[in-house]
Amino acid sequence: MRIFVAQLNLIIGDFTYNVKKIFQAIAKGKKQKADIVLFSELTLCGYPPEDLLFYPSFLEKMEEVMPKICKASSDLMVVIGLARKNPEGKEKGAFNSAAVIIDGRLVGYKDKTLLPTYDVFDERRYFEPGKEQKIFEYKGKKIAILICEDMWQHGGDLLFTHYRRDPVKELAENPPDLLLNLSASPYYFQKRDTRVITFAATAKTLKCPIVYCNQVGANDQLIFDGYSLYMSSKGELLQVAKGFVEDYLIIDTEQGLSPIAFEQDIYEDLFSALVLGVKDYFSKQGFKKALLGLSGGIDSALVACIAEKALGKENITCLFLPTRYSSKESYEDSLLLVKNLEIKLLYLSIDTLFQSFLDTLAPHFSKNKPDITEENLQSRIRGIILMAFSNKFGSIVLSTGNKSEMAMGYTTLYGDMCGGLGVLNDVSKAQVYQLARFINRRRKVIPQTILDKEPTAELKPGQRDIDTLPEYTTVDAVQEDYVEELLSATDISKKRGLSLDLVQGLINKIHNAEYKRRQAPPGIRVTKRAFSKGRIFPIVQRWKH
Amino acid sequence: MRIFVAQLNLIIGDFTYNVKKIFQAIAKGKKQKADIVLFSELTLCGYPPEDLLFYPSFLEKMEEVMPKICKASSDLMVVIGLARKNPEGKEKGAFNSAAVIIDGRLVGYKDKTLLPTYDVFDERRYFEPGKEQKIFEYKGKKIAILICEDMWQHGGDLLFTHYRRDPVKELAENPPDLLLNLSASPYYFQKRDTRVITFAATAKTLKCPIVYCNQVGANDQLIFDGYSLYMSSKGELLQVAKGFVEDYLIIDTEQGLSPIAFEQDIYEDLFSALVLGVKDYFSKQGFKKALLGLSGGIDSALVACIAEKALGKENITCLFLPTRYSSKESYEDSLLLVKNLEIKLLYLSIDTLFQSFLDTLAPHFSKNKPDITEENLQSRIRGIILMAFSNKFGSIVLSTGNKSEMAMGYTTLYGDMCGGLGVLNDVSKAQVYQLARFINRRRKVIPQTILDKEPTAELKPGQRDIDTLPEYTTVDAVQEDYVEELLSATDISKKRGLSLDLVQGLINKIHNAEYKRRQAPPGIRVTKRAFSKGRIFPIVQRWKH
Repeated sequence: MRIFVAQLNLIIGDFTYNVKKIFQAIAKGKKQKADIVLFSELTLCGYPPEDLLFYPSFLEKMEEVMPKICKASSDLMVVIGLARKNPEGKEKGAFNSAAVIIDGRLVGYKDKTLLPTYDVFDERRYFEPGKEQKIFEYKGKKIAILICEDMWQHGGDLLFTHYRRDPVKELAENPPDLLLNLSASPYYFQKRDTRVITFAATAKTLKCPIVYCNQVGANDQLIFDGYSLYMSSKGELLQVAKGFVEDYLIIDTEQGLSPIAFEQDIYEDLFSALVLGVKDYFSKQGFKKALLGLSGGIDSALVACIAEKALGKENITCLFLPTRYSSKESYEDSLLLVKNLEIKLLYLSIDTLFQSFLDTLAPHFSKNKPDITEENLQSRIRGIILMAFSNKFGSIVLSTGNKSEMAMGYTTLYGDMCGGLGVLNDVSKAQVYQLARFINRRRKVIPQTILDKEPTAELKPGQRDIDTLPEYTTVDAVQEDYVEELLSATDISKKRGLSLDLVQGLINKIHNAEYKRRQAPPGIRVTKRAFSKGRIFPIVQRWKH
Repeated sequence: MRIFVAQLNLIIGDFTYNVKKIFQAIAKGKKQKADIVLFSELTLCGYPPEDLLFYPSFLEKMEEVMPKICKASSDLMVVIGLARKNPEGKEKGAFNSAAVIIDGRLVGYKDKTLLPTYDVFDERRYFEPGKEQKIFEYKGKKIAILICEDMWQHGGDLLFTHYRRDPVKELAENPPDLLLNLSASPYYFQKRDTRVITFAATAKTLKCPIVYCNQVGANDQLIFDGYSLYMSSKGELLQVAKGFVEDYLIIDTEQGLSPIAFEQDIYEDLFSALVLGVKDYFSKQGFKKALLGLSGGIDSALVACIAEKALGKENITCLFLPTRYSSKESYEDSLLLVKNLEIKLLYLSIDTLFQSFLDTLAPHFSKNKPDITEENLQSRIRGIILMAFSNKFGSIVLSTGNKSEMAMGYTTLYGDMCGGLGVLNDVSKAQVYQLARFINRRRKVIPQTILDKEPTAELKPGQRDIDTLPEYTTVDAVQEDYVEELLSATDISKKRGLSLDLVQGLINKIHNAEYKRRQAPPGIRVTKRAFSKGRIFPIVQRWKH
């Protein structure tokens, strides 16, 4: 049996584009003499379509294109993901399904059984669960189909889901010869291993090979990493598609292959995820040009590198926007960086504007001492300037704040938080350094001085982050344990050997910054739990953890 | 049987505060010689606690306080809402339950059966559904308990939910003598009738009276309107608690009462909802003072009235921030308004700042014609000034954009969209006028000239909204049908007699502004579907409706 796996980068709701991609893949599959062409979850509309699923016309559009896809599928088995109306009409209005086309005829659907409703997923908002596992016969083989989550319950201790049903066990009662999995499984840092382990467990239970097709590409905040794969009935990994780009696998189940290892550089993956996040956010909206403010610090330097890789050096414009508090070194370091990256840098002092604001406000503020207000003013003037360039030249501003800062609220709303995309919103300060070193290992583009200098916002004389916040290692420890791992203050205090007061203080900071994050630009999600999509917290609440 | 209904305004996660309220209510109930004290859904933690429910320590806190509540509940039946751990541990980790305390002893739980996972609700993210309906016996009466949604499936054609189960029908097999309903049912415009109809249908099916306790108060974007009620076994409304304030009902089921009508002024309710939304957003966070920019237009005038009512005149500061394009009339009208409301108005010209920005940007923009950039600059300078006052004096900025503008993206990100709370985010332009007239019917505070003038942003000479947008009646029609009612472009075109091109153009505008709304301040939700909580749309998508 020859299986062609189409790992595609789809655009939500762009049926013309997606169907064209599907036709191309089917044609390639035929050329490769495939028996089966396998697509990812919700291929037709792209994943996740969110509330577009509530429009009956959106579901009807998918019904409408299916006959065309069938027509293109002669002499093949094609398995393709789509949302379809729930004909019974009870509870939710749709199923998340795989359509099974055999020799040009739609022979049936397999509906997703387990509907993730946690983390970034809210599939119970839209879908009814499928009732049963089905076996389709083709060329004498019994073929089972699972959709993403359906297989994950078989991952054992790895998982934090505890469904009553396990579709893999249900299939084990009448084991198939081949299992196909259609997925839209988002990337997060160091996730890959858990997939391989779960798939191996499934293959061993069913004693059949598994072919897994994952979506690739970024849709808003979610990064789909691809890495579609083929696993033997013994649970050995035999083939893997590329990560973070469109790719195809041609699998021949009769062919004897040696097991391979899943080679993984976790920082290369993280970098690729961020690059893809920027690239697709721009290209899928029809934008080419990005703007960002360079401060001379590590965060904006990293964003410049990511943007250059994603959009090309000709499409990046950096602005250096100094005030009286900006150091000469910051400008020199920025100059060196843009020279290395061959991108544009404009120098535009905002000190006159800053003074103009101080003067305008003086009659009202004269009785008060300078405080955070004057710091925020500088950051917000920068935001205005960036947005003016964005409006004037049709480019998107990239914001450069990292997850540690977002956690602490160590950011200025409407200031450095301005932007269409928060590239590092979900990247901790420690990961920022790791990524910078990863980039410099290939080619030294980020000046060593930027890597070495102490973090500072340069919004008042001699300012250092450390004056306001604990060391970033402490911030990151509490953030990871509290936000990503959902540990309590007491448990974090014990685990990290930090005083309970300190931990509670930092958790308070996290909650108190909720109102800021609610207005943050969408960020690229690269951890198990980002601050935006997949995390829902009240602004007004007073829980003492 | 005497039932005391405690319609409380709770604070999410503030167990000390909530438990104190609960003790007070139990004491009052005892004083009123009540047999039963009834609370609302999730009373202990407040509704909706969102992802706080994922912290085991949050659930444990509720377990911990229960013995104290039992102790306070001697010689009573107390029914109180809380989240509790799912002891089975399968699927979701918690139940949304009513604890039943009889004479100081916790006798059991009724778990919510129907878990809304649509609109603003995502209860399947957190909760396992309860398996069965239970009957509790007290003083010789069979008492059934339903939690909010459990009863709504019995509303027939009114509802958009289509659950397989109907807990009311399940109860009908062994009908109770009394039905208690604990709710956290959010307000939306003109909702009240649907509740009364559903309750009447339920009473008639079960042939028993219903006592309904609803949460009151605002938690972030949701407004809980209270209006707890008592309905006879014939489906006649006998008692109703006040709306939008804490209140109690003392019900005696032996007492003969005459049916009453549900008196309703829809604009009074809408106004009360917005006032409560502002009031609780401030008080529950410990803020007192609000700031807003007055433009001389109807939206900011309305927000000033709402804020004055919510926070008191001494806590409102308005800023009039003119540029060269602001008219004398706008200032005069603003002066008249603040005089009528007895609130402060500061006049602070931003024209020098505007010129300063133009000068700073001139070297870079000289080859380009003035466009939206220069308009946005003015709006963003205003945003900075407001935020500077907010930082300096510890007040919260109220943003004043309405739902029609938010739909069209006729707002400036980081400009007029600055603020801690978007008071009118979910109020259409038509409703803005209705509310202004409602306010003026009581006391003429909004100058007639503000009501009469043509909408304008005053960001360039002679500007009128109508130059950029169709009439607001058209905008509102398409917004309501597309956003709130989920109709397709074709259906809207037919229903409203508008050209398909026009409708599709406006729908495109709605989708294209998604990126702006993602960074909007949280708004007070007052319709069936607001743009923020309860509506989840991708930014990057290309669906052609």
